[in-house]
Amino acid sequence: MRIIGEKINGTRQRVAQAIEERDSAFIQDLAAKQAEAGVAWLDVNAGTRQDKEPDDLIWLVETIQSTVDVPLCLDSANPQALVAAIQVVEQTPMINSISGEPQRLEGILPLVAEHGCPTIALAMDDAGIPETCEERMEVVRKLMETARAHGVPDDDMYIDPLAMTLATNTDSALITLDTMHAIRQEYPETHLIMGLSNISFGLPARSYINRAFLILALAAGLDSAILDPLDRELRAALVTARLILGQDRHCLGYTRAYRAGLFNGMESNS
Amino acid sequence: MRIIGEKINGTRQRVAQAIEERDSAFIQDLAAKQAEAGVAWLDVNAGTRQDKEPDDLIWLVETIQSTVDVPLCLDSANPQALVAAIQVVEQTPMINSISGEPQRLEGILPLVAEHGCPTIALAMDDAGIPETCEERMEVVRKLMETARAHGVPDDDMYIDPLAMTLATNTDSALITLDTMHAIRQEYPETHLIMGLSNISFGLPARSYINRAFLILALAAGLDSAILDPLDRELRAALVTARLILGQDRHCLGYTRAYRAGLFNGMESNS
Repeated sequence: MRIIGEKINGTRQRVAQAIEERDSAFIQDLAAKQAEAGVAWLDVNAGTRQDKEPDDLIWLVETIQSTVDVPLCLDSANPQALVAAIQVVEQTPMINSISGEPQRLEGILPLVAEHGCPTIALAMDDAGIPETCEERMEVVRKLMETARAHGVPDDDMYIDPLAMTLATNTDSALITLDTMHAIRQEYPETHLIMGLSNISFGLPARSYINRAFLILALAAGLDSAILDPLDRELRAALVTARLILGQDRHCLGYTRAYRAGLFNGMESNS
Repeated sequence: MRIIGEKINGTRQRVAQAIEERDSAFIQDLAAKQAEAGVAWLDVNAGTRQDKEPDDLIWLVETIQSTVDVPLCLDSANPQALVAAIQVVEQTPMINSISGEPQRLEGILPLVAEHGCPTIALAMDDAGIPETCEERMEVVRKLMETARAHGVPDDDMYIDPLAMTLATNTDSALITLDTMHAIRQEYPETHLIMGLSNISFGLPARSYINRAFLILALAAGLDSAILDPLDRELRAALVTARLILGQDRHCLGYTRAYRAGLFNGMESNS
């Protein structure tokens, strides 16, 4: 399971403020804490100040790289910002993200191919997020066809089947899980990734839904996720799911996490 | 989802004491609380005083029936105790359980057929619990063949695929889930039931494992379970899993449970 730490995201108000004020200490603290939690990549999103995005992204990348040694995941829909940031990254970055939207696909895919970047590909196009599994697979097939035509290896593709909130469609999680099964079937060399929290948008006690959905997604083949690596509940759900899914030899990961106190205070009865 | 309340079980020390002392108030309190939590059946197990089991079971049944109106699940491996208890039950009881063990199968199945009882059937025989999914299915096939020969409808069969602890075999949950899928495939009219807690025997933070396993089992088709209906964490996991699995129209069950306070104090972030 590869985790992409989600906390350095300029659409969050406190992070946007730090970017605007060039508050290195705040950003470096977020980077260090997530690195310590063992993320595979740190997501870096410069937020919504569009004409300033390239400069903001470069500043973020340099600020983070001066503190930690973790590969970055450059998070932008803007090819110009990505081109600028790729010049300053020290390790090959992940790109977040392409989709079936022509601007994103044609603007970003050549970059990905040129630099050999692992890339998140969203199962949506300019018509939005398709309602059904079959329609999402049509988008995925087009994405995969184009990526292969550009010489991107399947193993660099991190496909996000997308999850819409259960609040407006109670079949939403099933559609996402079905799409994951279909992707596993047709493109076994690709990775499956997800942002977890959309599933519970607009509902109460969201983290409870997110955790249960994470467990089902792992069983369906999820092998990477964009999440808050400091969320103890999510980490506990991850460790537990790995144990149940036969991915934790001799229960070592689980018992170590227990001894390290991961489950403390979460239990009514142990 | 049909719940069988597990708390009136004479193998628990406090319940054994209540049975020995004919402490009606203690038993009736356990019955009333579980009935209020909405169980479909109340499990009634008279424990291990073998020659006294028929009398103890009759006393339990009469004590419970004088307080609540919920059907009972007579839990015994002893045909004599079951014959005695069936005479005094007011509603058709569930029987817990038969298995491939000849004494249990031949001793109990005729009773089940005669009285039209829903029955729990364990995927094990006198050689114990088979290691593999395929071997468990062999036992299930024999059980189903015998039950059908006795005229028991498939819809009365509640098959328990059995879960051994992950502590000694980390593939244990996967074997159970695979067996559930196979049963769903071959015997679509039967029910799938489970006692949840074996899966975590000998491991720390057991309720965390039990809840994650419950979510995966529900996705695999579990439609009934023997559990503690007063365990708030388990009920929250159930409600959440139903929402995610598309079984909660308009999220009504989930939002009602939330408003009733089911998730209170379980969340680090909502």
